[in-house]
Amino acid sequence: MMLQLGLVLSLLTHAVSIPDPRQREALIQLESSMQTGGQMVLTDAEQELDVRLFKMKQGEMARAAFPPAMHFFRARDLIRRSPIFSLLQKMPKGGALHVHDFSMVDVDWLVKNVTYRPHCYVCYTDDQSIRFLFSSRGPEPLPRCSTWILLEELRAKMINSTDLDNSIKRNLTLFTEQDPEVAYPSQDVVWRRFEQTFLAVWGLVTYAPVFRDYYYEGLTQFYLDNVMYLELRALLPEVYELDGSTHDRAWTLKTYRDVTKRFKAQHPDFFGARIIFTVHRGVNLSVMTEAIEEAMKLQSSFPDTLAGFDLVGREDSGRPLWYFREALSLPAERGVELPFFFHAGETDLEGTDVDQNLLDALLLNTSRIGHGFALVRHPVAKDLSRKRGVAVEVCPVSNQVLKLVKDLRNHPAAALMSENHPVVISSDDPALFGAAGLSYDFYEAFVGLGGIKSNIASLKQLAMNSLRYSSLSQRQKTEALVLWQRRWDKFVSEHVYQS
Amino acid sequence: MMLQLGLVLSLLTHAVSIPDPRQREALIQLESSMQTGGQMVLTDAEQELDVRLFKMKQGEMARAAFPPAMHFFRARDLIRRSPIFSLLQKMPKGGALHVHDFSMVDVDWLVKNVTYRPHCYVCYTDDQSIRFLFSSRGPEPLPRCSTWILLEELRAKMINSTDLDNSIKRNLTLFTEQDPEVAYPSQDVVWRRFEQTFLAVWGLVTYAPVFRDYYYEGLTQFYLDNVMYLELRALLPEVYELDGSTHDRAWTLKTYRDVTKRFKAQHPDFFGARIIFTVHRGVNLSVMTEAIEEAMKLQSSFPDTLAGFDLVGREDSGRPLWYFREALSLPAERGVELPFFFHAGETDLEGTDVDQNLLDALLLNTSRIGHGFALVRHPVAKDLSRKRGVAVEVCPVSNQVLKLVKDLRNHPAAALMSENHPVVISSDDPALFGAAGLSYDFYEAFVGLGGIKSNIASLKQLAMNSLRYSSLSQRQKTEALVLWQRRWDKFVSEHVYQS
Ligand SMILES: [Zn+2]
Ligand SMILES: [Zn+2]
Repeated sequence: MMLQLGLVLSLLTHAVSIPDPRQREALIQLESSMQTGGQMVLTDAEQELDVRLFKMKQGEMARAAFPPAMHFFRARDLIRRSPIFSLLQKMPKGGALHVHDFSMVDVDWLVKNVTYRPHCYVCYTDDQSIRFLFSSRGPEPLPRCSTWILLEELRAKMINSTDLDNSIKRNLTLFTEQDPEVAYPSQDVVWRRFEQTFLAVWGLVTYAPVFRDYYYEGLTQFYLDNVMYLELRALLPEVYELDGSTHDRAWTLKTYRDVTKRFKAQHPDFFGARIIFTVHRGVNLSVMTEAIEEAMKLQSSFPDTLAGFDLVGREDSGRPLWYFREALSLPAERGVELPFFFHAGETDLEGTDVDQNLLDALLLNTSRIGHGFALVRHPVAKDLSRKRGVAVEVCPVSNQVLKLVKDLRNHPAAALMSENHPVVISSDDPALFGAAGLSYDFYEAFVGLGGIKSNIASLKQLAMNSLRYSSLSQRQKTEALVLWQRRWDKFVSEHVYQS
Repeated sequence: MMLQLGLVLSLLTHAVSIPDPRQREALIQLESSMQTGGQMVLTDAEQELDVRLFKMKQGEMARAAFPPAMHFFRARDLIRRSPIFSLLQKMPKGGALHVHDFSMVDVDWLVKNVTYRPHCYVCYTDDQSIRFLFSSRGPEPLPRCSTWILLEELRAKMINSTDLDNSIKRNLTLFTEQDPEVAYPSQDVVWRRFEQTFLAVWGLVTYAPVFRDYYYEGLTQFYLDNVMYLELRALLPEVYELDGSTHDRAWTLKTYRDVTKRFKAQHPDFFGARIIFTVHRGVNLSVMTEAIEEAMKLQSSFPDTLAGFDLVGREDSGRPLWYFREALSLPAERGVELPFFFHAGETDLEGTDVDQNLLDALLLNTSRIGHGFALVRHPVAKDLSRKRGVAVEVCPVSNQVLKLVKDLRNHPAAALMSENHPVVISSDDPALFGAAGLSYDFYEAFVGLGGIKSNIASLKQLAMNSLRYSSLSQRQKTEALVLWQRRWDKFVSEHVYQS
């Protein structure tokens, strides 16, 4: 039964003293119909699966240790053992719209498949991090780093290199077995470590042969997690060869396009991937202007591959969007189409310059909002985002690991989901957080943010949102939705009667 | 400059590509005008004070350790040294509308002024708590407690009783110098300790002479914190005398009335206090029915003193409001006026039966909502609360200590304040949390929830809200507001040019 909000509320504005159970039921239904997925019409099979799912969730909520209330590093093993998680892994989740280039692939793969390649050098920085470089001769020494050591030679001297491999792994991810509160006591500490880890990965993944393999493996891991489409935020670095020569950005973008094409050919039910070119927000205005100029060029050369532009790096310590307004207005001034996908509102600093990014992203006509953690405290920005259909890319694990919120039941997107604000779920930097693909974030969103009341319809809507709010053309969206629906129906029919 | 939301938004719904700085400024102004206090017209003096306050807040936010992001037990000393806190202490804050009877007075006073009285017996429970009783002869032993020891005798044997006094203090409050995360690892642990502490205080404060003095001292402490009016949630227990005889509830309520009268006579600028009769939500339906019957009687006997009725105790483990609907509907069925002030939504358990309390409180025509922590996840309840002017009593320190939220910048009332939802700030159980009066909670609300954008107008509005949403009659409200305004103007003029 669908109810008109206005009607019910007008009845209630004049207080009724003795509550009528039917009216109460109607209000509960009304509230439930307002949430993400609340307007979905479900098939019989979907409704049956929902009954199963509801029981699973009740079980999950009755557990003494409730994973969404715990730090992800502590919760990960519990989540892996959760029947809801298993189901979410198999569920066709649509697209992953907020994932960064060098955190797609788990670190085990990096260690086993990359650091064992020939010509891989390592050095240790004086602030306890690590750098890598592939080189045909010994590379030039780095400032504040030990001399370069050839990993092949180092390993040859060892009886077994498990300890070495583990210590490398620890440098390539934030994930730790330690108490995360002790390891990362503040946002500053965790972000510093985040940046170190990023630099540690850099030398491995920007080596041309690895770059191709890494991206292919990234697509594979998302594909195996039942993600059919990807929008990758990519720095498009100058990728290097063994002799130290480098390629330009166009080469890098072209490589993404070619590897995607190859992957699609081998996996016909994968829909594809597009690239959002990203620049660090620490640069100055003239560097940003050049980047925008290049982005426009790349966009006209690779219109199918390049989806748009974004800024990356910690908002709190970087420059606000408004600082770059001249550069960011160039495409509009020239009548050139360059869609923006700005990170905005990934902050606690309510009311500061940085906190203005949300409104400015909307003023700059952003197509989506990355994180939007602060959106609920900005009623004007929130209203604009809703009215314009500018979806918020919600990344629960990321926000928790980077210490914006501790208990994911308090994530502000819980309020957004309760009123069907346009949102998509994504994973930001899964490898850095010890996650993978999209299923961990779907778990946190479904069990933590959604609470007991989010259901199969919420999941269906979230998956469909990820295509609807993608950068694909209208025709492509329709095509992708048809493909998704086929897989969804199969998923539902395969799981509805299982117990 | 006041702007129409509709107008600005309709302009923006059709995206403008090159942002206009004036339009941006207008939107920032618009958002700022929507927050709590955003519609206030300020005097010149208030605007000057706001400039000072803004600088203070910038200083506060630049500190490495930001108190609202820390556990209150860790933050308390920092808050005490904050110039904003000093100012908030002096600020006339209006009324405290959500405070419980036996947590008004700091524990130092209890130890020094109560446990040193003659005939005070103590026993130690086998679960590391403590009980007290005043008695003219040795009292009957309690189950699972040591034999009763006369404190006077115990202290006489000691050279100095500082250690004893300190150990008593630790039993009368949740506050601890230990790491609060270690001392209270979960909501279950902190609530269990909360209930123990409550029982420890019980025997001291329900002794008739102490009962009177305690309440008088409670009024004094709030008065000294520049609170002019109080609505006290009170269990109205059977208060006992030295010979073991007890008084009935009417006696207790009458005592509240008489002590309030005496306090007002001695402090003519104190406006008064009213009582909200509370019953534990652990009782069954027939006990609740009796309590409602008694509440109606008390209400007709003491219409000026009794403001209404509420249920107390942890929502998550108690019975939901709907369980008690028959009892709670009695007044309305009989056409008797018994206002409700229900605790509701003091929970993380999104979507469970307990989480239905918010909607049910509104269906039962509650006058205000205690806590309403979960309100932002209930769009229908939120809309009703706003449209009906049912204010949310926000108690930030309480919610943090009882582990609903860690970083107070993530408190959901931050969103409520950003859209001027009807809210008041209160302190719930200040003595149990190591707080006092209302200023700590005003600090957390102003600096943590409000962020940099909340200002003198927000404070003014919050203070005025506390009278506007009180249970006072329209005439009394006007009178109280006049009294408050006089004190407010004095406060502003005294602090505007100080530096
Ligand atoms: Zn990101
Ligand atoms: Zn309370």
